[in-house]
Amino acid sequence: MSSSVYFRSMNKISRLYFLQSPVKRSVQNVNTIRMLANISISKKKEKETFINIFPLLTETLIKSPKFAKHPQIGNWMKKILEYNMCGGKQSRGLATVYTYEMIEKPENITEESMKLARIMGWCVEMLHTHLVLFDDIMDGSTTRRGVSCWYRLPDVGLGAINDAALLHMAMFHILKIHFSQRSCYAKILDVFHDTLLNTSIGQHYDYMMAHRNKNDYTQFTIERYRIIADNKTAYYTFKLPVCLGLLHADKTDHETHKLAEDVTMEIGQFFQIQDDYIDCFSDESITGKVGTDIQEGKCTWLAVMALQRCNAEQRSLFEQCYGSSEPIDVQRIKQLYETLELPLLYKEYERNVYNRVLERANNAASGALPSALILRLFNLIHKRKG
Amino acid sequence: MSSSVYFRSMNKISRLYFLQSPVKRSVQNVNTIRMLANISISKKKEKETFINIFPLLTETLIKSPKFAKHPQIGNWMKKILEYNMCGGKQSRGLATVYTYEMIEKPENITEESMKLARIMGWCVEMLHTHLVLFDDIMDGSTTRRGVSCWYRLPDVGLGAINDAALLHMAMFHILKIHFSQRSCYAKILDVFHDTLLNTSIGQHYDYMMAHRNKNDYTQFTIERYRIIADNKTAYYTFKLPVCLGLLHADKTDHETHKLAEDVTMEIGQFFQIQDDYIDCFSDESITGKVGTDIQEGKCTWLAVMALQRCNAEQRSLFEQCYGSSEPIDVQRIKQLYETLELPLLYKEYERNVYNRVLERANNAASGALPSALILRLFNLIHKRKG
Repeated sequence: MSSSVYFRSMNKISRLYFLQSPVKRSVQNVNTIRMLANISISKKKEKETFINIFPLLTETLIKSPKFAKHPQIGNWMKKILEYNMCGGKQSRGLATVYTYEMIEKPENITEESMKLARIMGWCVEMLHTHLVLFDDIMDGSTTRRGVSCWYRLPDVGLGAINDAALLHMAMFHILKIHFSQRSCYAKILDVFHDTLLNTSIGQHYDYMMAHRNKNDYTQFTIERYRIIADNKTAYYTFKLPVCLGLLHADKTDHETHKLAEDVTMEIGQFFQIQDDYIDCFSDESITGKVGTDIQEGKCTWLAVMALQRCNAEQRSLFEQCYGSSEPIDVQRIKQLYETLELPLLYKEYERNVYNRVLERANNAASGALPSALILRLFNLIHKRKG
Repeated sequence: MSSSVYFRSMNKISRLYFLQSPVKRSVQNVNTIRMLANISISKKKEKETFINIFPLLTETLIKSPKFAKHPQIGNWMKKILEYNMCGGKQSRGLATVYTYEMIEKPENITEESMKLARIMGWCVEMLHTHLVLFDDIMDGSTTRRGVSCWYRLPDVGLGAINDAALLHMAMFHILKIHFSQRSCYAKILDVFHDTLLNTSIGQHYDYMMAHRNKNDYTQFTIERYRIIADNKTAYYTFKLPVCLGLLHADKTDHETHKLAEDVTMEIGQFFQIQDDYIDCFSDESITGKVGTDIQEGKCTWLAVMALQRCNAEQRSLFEQCYGSSEPIDVQRIKQLYETLELPLLYKEYERNVYNRVLERANNAASGALPSALILRLFNLIHKRKG
């Protein structure tokens, strides 16, 4: 699908939404506002409960026979977890818990089943951290969440590669401790493996695009961009947590999982576009990390949009400055983005996605997934600043 | 266990073996020689068959829906596999096949079941390659199997981290394609995860020992050495293939798996000691790689033995030169090893392990694992040069 068709189709849905009678729209909006208000209160509470379980999870892991034999490794594991996993938004973990909570039959929800959902959520967070440790080394990043990247600490270095592996396997160890007796255990493991395969496919595209021949931007298309965003981000950020929540509630039917995939891939793609925007335009004091996409010549949504909109002179400037680490070049690219009104385009795109998600949430055809869940998932990332 | 007790206990078993009546020993030896001759012929044939299945495996992977959607990734995957997996000894893969073949009831052995055993064996080889890719980056190695390390190729670089992840997940994808319908599927996945957790525990010790405070050799003990060797090497090199062979033959009983663990950990530990010896004393033209253990200050069997045997002056020389990249320092350490007669000690140790394994193979108590299998596993590595 070409970019114009892609964005036209988005616009079409949001136009359809606004073409509805004002009365219908107004009822939907009131419902939506009420829903969002409730979500906001319960979101804060759930996040607290979710965070509170983390020390317990760490203790269980370190006291398990596999780690108890190696106290030195247990302490190191704790250090990896505490340094790299505290302070984030935990959207992926929370998405797992929300899905379970809103899909499971009320009579099956117990303190124990919610605890297990949270443990599952932390496993997704561990997976994310594992990917982040690799990513920071490959991208040569310096800071993350306002502190030095793990691999840049003097007593870590390239040992971070093994620390990421340790974290990865500790995650599977936690899953084994808590879920190996469940009939869906093999399915849970498959979902993790499938997701990680997609992530490494996306990472490979991403890496190759940044290391292509200089000034060859033939592959900076919206189609290629979507492949990267879907694989690198959307699968593990949204599809994985939602699928896990469904499996924990013993929902294994194809229809629900297919719908979950459609919704989560849309939200996940938006998340990546938002990420690209934040990398370029957000303040380091808010995001806690220094953007490096321009310097690394990454195939971002902004780069793709700029190449679509620029004239010959602007293209020449782009080719000259993109992928350079010189602050003046980075500044020129940002200026070009401004000239091409990409921040405006982004806002428009954000509005369109929002309307589209509202549309889905209000659509009776989405019966297999509750509207409130779709909104709640989207609300995890909507208007985020970092 | 202190090193002297450790080696005394080894000597005790080999002494016991030689204390048997000459007639009994002679019968055992004739049987052993016959067994080894048969093994040698079938080993060559099995290796050929094993290698012949590799292109088919690659094709199946690349044509699977997950990869077929991304021909560029499929081609890259093929490149990773062909560059990094051809030309090795494939001991781990063959150990998987041998175990299955010698454990399975003859009536259950079919062309299909043998093909599956070989696929399983290639999965172990993929796991090994995944670990090797990480290892070479962390150790800063230059060559492997006579060619440049993967991460040192100009179009690879630190993207090798993701390539290792891609390989890892491709391995699980192959397992899913071929084994997900089997009742032992979750157990197979657990064995892989458990093994990888052990490997990363071993790798962490190894890395920390090499990056300790300069001249602090308090932890260079035989006990610590054994922990590293068991975790870093023995689990995935011997225990994993044997456990997988057993699972493929539907052998899940605790007794057999426990015995398999005991035998494989002993052989695996020998394998690591052999590896350390080869890194220092073998010729690059035979091993295809440049030894870096001395330069990296690794906790090797040679370093541990040297520290046990040296006088104050020799210790001072060791402390001065170990962990240095200067060729003259490396040479001095090698000379010290020679002066301390470590090559002789190694030969003696090798003989002891060999006798011990023969003892096990001839021991009626090992009934749950056939003697021929134990010998065959050991024969995979005995007297190897690289």
